[in-house]
Amino acid sequence: MNIIIMGCGRVGARLAGLLDIEGHSVTILDIETYSFHRLPSEFAGTALVGDGMDEEVLKKAGIEKADAFVAVTEADNHNIMAAQIARHLFSVPKVVCRIYDPLRRELFSSLGIEALSPTTTFAQMLKDKIEQ
Amino acid sequence: MNIIIMGCGRVGARLAGLLDIEGHSVTILDIETYSFHRLPSEFAGTALVGDGMDEEVLKKAGIEKADAFVAVTEADNHNIMAAQIARHLFSVPKVVCRIYDPLRRELFSSLGIEALSPTTTFAQMLKDKIEQ
Repeated sequence: MNIIIMGCGRVGARLAGLLDIEGHSVTILDIETYSFHRLPSEFAGTALVGDGMDEEVLKKAGIEKADAFVAVTEADNHNIMAAQIARHLFSVPKVVCRIYDPLRRELFSSLGIEALSPTTTFAQMLKDKIEQ
Repeated sequence: MNIIIMGCGRVGARLAGLLDIEGHSVTILDIETYSFHRLPSEFAGTALVGDGMDEEVLKKAGIEKADAFVAVTEADNHNIMAAQIARHLFSVPKVVCRIYDPLRRELFSSLGIEALSPTTTFAQMLKDKIEQ
């Protein structure tokens, strides 16, 4: 699959590594060159400096042929906006984004884009650990 | 169960709410009074201002009768230290902590305390979403 990841933080970089190892074609975007140091040294995909909310940058990243787009910057609003551009402007089949705010996540999920909240999922995981 | 949570950030507050609803006796610690605004309004547990690395604070929180201790501050080092105090000094049966750094997590798990890395678990979850 052709996969574009926006945001090369800890999660983005790790996800890029996991997908790359499995043979997917991965392009990862970040506005800070420095962020790419988080990528595993054996990463064979493309690291592109630019803003995922900018259509020109997205085209350069190959969004027109992308099978999946993942938005995992630190900012919920950026993730929401980029996910909407990818889904509705470029018709990327699979769009997933991270939303920290659980209330926003529910709202956004109802708009047809998969949104995952690390807060909710992680709190639930801790609860399971305690009660197991 | 008597459960002490250190750190009333998004995850700590949500976890406190989930456990409280199920009837557990929850005490949540934070060094910032302001953090407690994140707790759900119906939270019936105890919110205590103080540092979970301070033994006196832990005693005040009831650590000697605690069944579980969860460390979810923003700082890996604080979580590790508090988890070790709870486990080894106060013999709390169940100790779980959050560690952002995946490498540290592996090291720490080998010391006998359950450590969960949101980075690793969340990246894996996103990968599953993309590939499903």
